[in-house]
Amino acid sequence: MSAQNHVTLILPDWLIPIVPSGFFHQEGIAIQGDRIVDKGSHEELRHRYPAATVTRLPGHVLLPGLINIHTHAAMTLLRGLADDLPLMIWLQQHIWPAEGRFVAPDFVAMGTRLAIVEMLQGGTTCFNDMYFFPDAAIAMAQEMGMRMVAGHVIIDFPTTYTRNAEDALRLAEEQIARFAKVPMLRQTVAPHAPYSVANGALQEAAAIARQSGLPIHMHVHETAAEVRDALQRDNRRPLRRLADLGVLGPDFLAIHMTQLDEEDLALCREYKIAIGHCPESNLKLGSGIAPVARLLEQGQRLGIGTDGAASNNDLDMLSELRTAALLAKGRDQDPTAFPAQQVLRAATLGAAEALGWDQEIGSLEPGKAADCIAIDLDRPASTPVYDPISQVVYCASRDQVQEVWVGGRRKIYRGQALEWQIPEVVAEAHLWAQRIRKEAKQ
Amino acid sequence: MSAQNHVTLILPDWLIPIVPSGFFHQEGIAIQGDRIVDKGSHEELRHRYPAATVTRLPGHVLLPGLINIHTHAAMTLLRGLADDLPLMIWLQQHIWPAEGRFVAPDFVAMGTRLAIVEMLQGGTTCFNDMYFFPDAAIAMAQEMGMRMVAGHVIIDFPTTYTRNAEDALRLAEEQIARFAKVPMLRQTVAPHAPYSVANGALQEAAAIARQSGLPIHMHVHETAAEVRDALQRDNRRPLRRLADLGVLGPDFLAIHMTQLDEEDLALCREYKIAIGHCPESNLKLGSGIAPVARLLEQGQRLGIGTDGAASNNDLDMLSELRTAALLAKGRDQDPTAFPAQQVLRAATLGAAEALGWDQEIGSLEPGKAADCIAIDLDRPASTPVYDPISQVVYCASRDQVQEVWVGGRRKIYRGQALEWQIPEVVAEAHLWAQRIRKEAKQ
Repeated sequence: MSAQNHVTLILPDWLIPIVPSGFFHQEGIAIQGDRIVDKGSHEELRHRYPAATVTRLPGHVLLPGLINIHTHAAMTLLRGLADDLPLMIWLQQHIWPAEGRFVAPDFVAMGTRLAIVEMLQGGTTCFNDMYFFPDAAIAMAQEMGMRMVAGHVIIDFPTTYTRNAEDALRLAEEQIARFAKVPMLRQTVAPHAPYSVANGALQEAAAIARQSGLPIHMHVHETAAEVRDALQRDNRRPLRRLADLGVLGPDFLAIHMTQLDEEDLALCREYKIAIGHCPESNLKLGSGIAPVARLLEQGQRLGIGTDGAASNNDLDMLSELRTAALLAKGRDQDPTAFPAQQVLRAATLGAAEALGWDQEIGSLEPGKAADCIAIDLDRPASTPVYDPISQVVYCASRDQVQEVWVGGRRKIYRGQALEWQIPEVVAEAHLWAQRIRKEAKQ
Repeated sequence: MSAQNHVTLILPDWLIPIVPSGFFHQEGIAIQGDRIVDKGSHEELRHRYPAATVTRLPGHVLLPGLINIHTHAAMTLLRGLADDLPLMIWLQQHIWPAEGRFVAPDFVAMGTRLAIVEMLQGGTTCFNDMYFFPDAAIAMAQEMGMRMVAGHVIIDFPTTYTRNAEDALRLAEEQIARFAKVPMLRQTVAPHAPYSVANGALQEAAAIARQSGLPIHMHVHETAAEVRDALQRDNRRPLRRLADLGVLGPDFLAIHMTQLDEEDLALCREYKIAIGHCPESNLKLGSGIAPVARLLEQGQRLGIGTDGAASNNDLDMLSELRTAALLAKGRDQDPTAFPAQQVLRAATLGAAEALGWDQEIGSLEPGKAADCIAIDLDRPASTPVYDPISQVVYCASRDQVQEVWVGGRRKIYRGQALEWQIPEVVAEAHLWAQRIRKEAKQ
């Protein structure tokens, strides 16, 4: 029997498959190659696969790998460079100058490596990225065996990556073709934001996405100022403008969406757009709070994301889930808003649906990719366990993620990375920080 | 030289003493017995204490132990029993019945033990508790060497602990005298809330507190309904009623305070009351959000707390600090609100001031108790380190707390509890949960 045909059983105390909803005591899954091939009680699975390798996980809950719906992964290298500042001072005096000096393929490769290590350790098995030099990030994700959605950034103003939107559009087309067949990779066209991409480029970006069958990934209605400025400039709210330009549709993923009036909510429904909710970043920058319960109620597909580490300041999805769950209740003064099961669904299948990748990932069902994580609940802070779904959302912290598989490959084993020397990754990031700190002081 | 006279140097990469504010590279402290006796650069300290034991902590930041300003520690045993429910269904159908069946000295002892293990592992060295059978909690804290503020609950309605307020007041007086000289312990008189304690009992509680020189610890203005009901009942907001009754003063610690109008804020100023902010509990129960930035601006002493594990669902102060920091910004749509240094100060010296214990704890200054914690920042999720204060507040998670001293005694060493078998504590909590779950289903 070849390794490819060999079956491994993963037998946790509790299974949270997402589909169906709820948790299942003493159930597990069978994986073979990169796929989940079966699901059932421990007993059934052992009976059906007597020759299988068995990974027993007492005290653990097994669930699909978390999907981070919005990252700028390489920005880990700028984590904590400047905090507690007004948005425009933060951007104009700290982040943009640092990016202008340092962002290049080596920066993106190293920042993405640090991000992938952090994400895998915290139970994230797929990230939807938007950053410069996506080819460098893709190469790193491939090298590390990480599932990724790479966004090709379209932006009007010059960066170290592209001179203008025209340049960015041509580069996006090239790279989309170049990376079309790469395994464990999907791509998006990523116009940066309504205020940073003009009408023509926006429409061209949408045309490229639709020709290639890719989603459009874009920051929309992040702040009240963005909406106010747009109203002054062309008398329309940004979402209305995107609708008028023909950019909205079920393949459109709008990130942030903290400022939504009734007309905006109607556009969300009409065009069936998907939403990326980044609660910690929105809080930290004082942007506003997306009406998550309302968006879910009206049937929007919705995922949860950390945003970049410069505005969060980590890529910790478990912490983000908790914040999302708590904040929705606080926002609506309703303790029943965004219950734990719905939160976990958003962070897995909801995100997969938003990315159009739900045939492959987001739930533990036979036929899907074997992206799964095991969280050890047998710790003081998550004891006792009346409901493992509650414990994952409201108590578990990233260090309790003990086992991580991506596409059937075990990346984290008993909390330890199997394929990298963490101290090396950390040390290299410190070297980068020394250079950045030195320049920042000048 | 006796053990009591022996000096230990703790030499981290960064010191955050709180007083003075900021962080100090390559500085540390000297401790002797239960006290901090000196502070200085690594070099100075090694020169001054050549015979000292040296604990070197490369990659770590040393700061005062965190003080949890509001707990119901024993409720860890009810953690996650019932979530995502309306407040009154949660209380009346789940929490109160469970408490009515189970709350007794053994429940309080075991729940408090689980809580103390969780708190120490997460860097909390002192907790301000309010729960039934405080004598059982005090005994456990003493046995475990944990610093504690024990609240003697005064409540009108019958519980498994007291029949009525009169009974509770007599018991409080007795116990305050009994525990007056216990080391590492302070006490408070804890009338439960404005709606659960009548005027006479409130005034008597305040009189007992003032005779004994103890603070008053009370839930106040937790929800809009509490304020609305009070207005209907006696035409005053609860804080106004407390002022009229003579209960408010600098020794009054008001927990929650999510509903504050201008008159309430003026009362806070006038009576110089202290505030306990519990952001995660307030979000989870949909109660509202305290105006932290405003309260600090007007000079109120303010600490941060987790509340009980039944409404949080953990006692994780680092997570609570992050939520507090983010939420203040989100609430006021101001990214400069409640900056990291202010947040850390609230969780240490601010809480000590609120409890009237700031001569002893809350900062790393010679003469104070040696309550301190070291957090390992040399992890992917907190790399790089531009500012260790930012990293502690915005990135660090509880598992990065590697060393904990309470009153000069090392309780956690390289992340491991030195004095308890964690699996035993967890197993015992599971046994309790089995009984509680069984009853809850009936």
